[in-house]
Amino acid sequence: MQEVIKKLLQPNDTKIVFCVLDGLGGLPQSGKTELEAANTPNLDALAQKSACGQHLPVAYGITPGSGAAHLGLFGYDPLIHQIGRGLLEALGLGLHITPNDIAIRGNFATVKYEGDTPVVVDRRAGRIPTEENRRIVSKITEKIKEVDGVKVNMVSGMEHRSAIVLSFPEPIGERGDEIHDTDPQLEGKSPIIATGNNPEAEKVAKVIAKFVDQVAEIISDEERANYLLLRGIATHPNLASYSEAYGLNAACIATYPMYRGVSKLVGMEVLEVGENSIKSEIETLKRDFDKHDFFYMHIKKVDSYGEDGNFQGKAGVIEEFDSFVPDILALNPDVIVVTGDHSTPANMKAHSWHPVPLLINAKNVRAEGAQGFGESDCLKGELGTFRAVDLMTLVLAHAGRLQKYGA
Amino acid sequence: MQEVIKKLLQPNDTKIVFCVLDGLGGLPQSGKTELEAANTPNLDALAQKSACGQHLPVAYGITPGSGAAHLGLFGYDPLIHQIGRGLLEALGLGLHITPNDIAIRGNFATVKYEGDTPVVVDRRAGRIPTEENRRIVSKITEKIKEVDGVKVNMVSGMEHRSAIVLSFPEPIGERGDEIHDTDPQLEGKSPIIATGNNPEAEKVAKVIAKFVDQVAEIISDEERANYLLLRGIATHPNLASYSEAYGLNAACIATYPMYRGVSKLVGMEVLEVGENSIKSEIETLKRDFDKHDFFYMHIKKVDSYGEDGNFQGKAGVIEEFDSFVPDILALNPDVIVVTGDHSTPANMKAHSWHPVPLLINAKNVRAEGAQGFGESDCLKGELGTFRAVDLMTLVLAHAGRLQKYGA
Repeated sequence: MQEVIKKLLQPNDTKIVFCVLDGLGGLPQSGKTELEAANTPNLDALAQKSACGQHLPVAYGITPGSGAAHLGLFGYDPLIHQIGRGLLEALGLGLHITPNDIAIRGNFATVKYEGDTPVVVDRRAGRIPTEENRRIVSKITEKIKEVDGVKVNMVSGMEHRSAIVLSFPEPIGERGDEIHDTDPQLEGKSPIIATGNNPEAEKVAKVIAKFVDQVAEIISDEERANYLLLRGIATHPNLASYSEAYGLNAACIATYPMYRGVSKLVGMEVLEVGENSIKSEIETLKRDFDKHDFFYMHIKKVDSYGEDGNFQGKAGVIEEFDSFVPDILALNPDVIVVTGDHSTPANMKAHSWHPVPLLINAKNVRAEGAQGFGESDCLKGELGTFRAVDLMTLVLAHAGRLQKYGA
Repeated sequence: MQEVIKKLLQPNDTKIVFCVLDGLGGLPQSGKTELEAANTPNLDALAQKSACGQHLPVAYGITPGSGAAHLGLFGYDPLIHQIGRGLLEALGLGLHITPNDIAIRGNFATVKYEGDTPVVVDRRAGRIPTEENRRIVSKITEKIKEVDGVKVNMVSGMEHRSAIVLSFPEPIGERGDEIHDTDPQLEGKSPIIATGNNPEAEKVAKVIAKFVDQVAEIISDEERANYLLLRGIATHPNLASYSEAYGLNAACIATYPMYRGVSKLVGMEVLEVGENSIKSEIETLKRDFDKHDFFYMHIKKVDSYGEDGNFQGKAGVIEEFDSFVPDILALNPDVIVVTGDHSTPANMKAHSWHPVPLLINAKNVRAEGAQGFGESDCLKGELGTFRAVDLMTLVLAHAGRLQKYGA
């Protein structure tokens, strides 16, 4: 659809506020979901004046990861486009990724050597403390700045995890695709040596293999983390930017690095947020409201409580967001979207496939059906149930930014 | 889907009346849309005995032009098939188009000459009166009957507009595709000379360029309309006919040339309608009811009032149509469809992307949900919300004209 949309774009001065409550969708306890149980007078009043419905993040029955779910919301079909695991990890740790880069998730491991051959004893190096991880990563980054002219950037994650970005002098293109993980998945096996499936990819794989060897030498004296296994070797998805795809000057208001990173991938300007709170995000929206025409605002903790199985905690964050809805309304945006990227029912302590409630508040809506903002109401709403990838088309339509299709 | 349908077709004697109230979908004023505000006892009673739902003319958020919307209703995916602007213009002015033809929209313009080079001064020739247009077109058509063996047919539109059909001795195929407009879009620029992007298209473009030069010579003495700019150069879409695609002997009952023309493109027989009224259309249906098995009936003025922002006027035409529903029922057709091609909310004075209410009255329906015929009721209907392109399959199914799919 993005090709169709591109031909129909007509610029105007409308402003769109696109609020994503991470993991918003839920399942009932005592007959009500987290969103329905939450006391949300402002969202309920807004839903009564909005077009409501529910979206399927990827497709029926598919539980999305955060990256895939956000691609869908942003209008890039997650069944076509992918954000590789390594890329997501690197973005989550705040690394910047360009089309020249390969992003990799690194797991410290314990190996023993049979002759010169390493054999994996523990794929997670006994889940070393994060502090130990940081010390070892420093040791590596002090010694390895580049490999064969390819710049190396490595940062620690939690416990045994890290992210590595290899920056080539030119766009990496397809050369970085389908390079196999070096993690053999099973203990008692040797790490796999990175190989590419064509001569150009092979050159890239050789850089990776050389990096692994150099790391192995540097950390060979470590007791537990004496090897680095690589997973999810990934390149930049080369998505059309929001400006190219939608003619929007978009901004991201998010506090977690991964969501800031995903926004950057689609060309949003990532705004500085004072502290990790909804209040601070709303202040950012107010501060920069005249500088952009599309604001993606991400509220993380709804999902976090869902993952913890904390029904009340999840409802509480929704209530906190609700209390700031009047501040958003006071800015008088032309279109307000409130939805989630996926469902995270407290009952399941995990992401799920359930459709996600959605409201679009704008001038030209039927505003029928919804008495409040919740799963049951949205099910009856005028927008019906549809794939998230179609949401941006609806948003642009409600913003008056699309011309008529066809003669 | 048409390929699937074709294999499943089983002929029978059923009759289908397919009523399209142009621009039927609306937005509420005081809580009710035009259709809901209209007093429609007959449609309401029919909806209670029908399968109801709503269709998306093209896709979520996409506002269709009339041609694209009709393609969808007729079961030809408007995201794949297109009716070019020139073709629609020519059909709208009553010209007949075959696969041998190129259809073009012509705009009279004012040019001044810098040496031999024309430079556009006014792209619309000061919007000359239609009478002046007619005089000038006569002057042209008297002198140009053909160009290099290609027959020329030109008719006046309103003000500065006209349509030209160039009839080649053999099917034009892809040779007519992607020939650029000669309209430079900006005043102060020279008209673009028609060119094709391959040798065969180049031959076609040369005929067009020669026609433009001959016209320029003939009208060089005109004060305002001394040049003809061409836009929307288009060929026949070569759609499978209703007979080939659906095994239907279809007829069109419409009074506006464009809709008669679009029907002709899909092989419908266009019936003579006495005068431009719903009454006359119903009389036509009665008169020829035994001659066809599918009747597309088009009611234009619902859309016209919507475009004017006249909520009451739009409701009034819907009421007028409602009064003739008993006449349709008296013919005892096996399937009655009532819907629109798109929404034209009076609130917006324009086509819109909103889903369009729909009823299918036939023997094997659940007939649940709808208390009357309106957007809210159709939203709850058993057919749900689906793309218009799927409607013809449902219609054929309700007519008992489709066998089982697969073993």
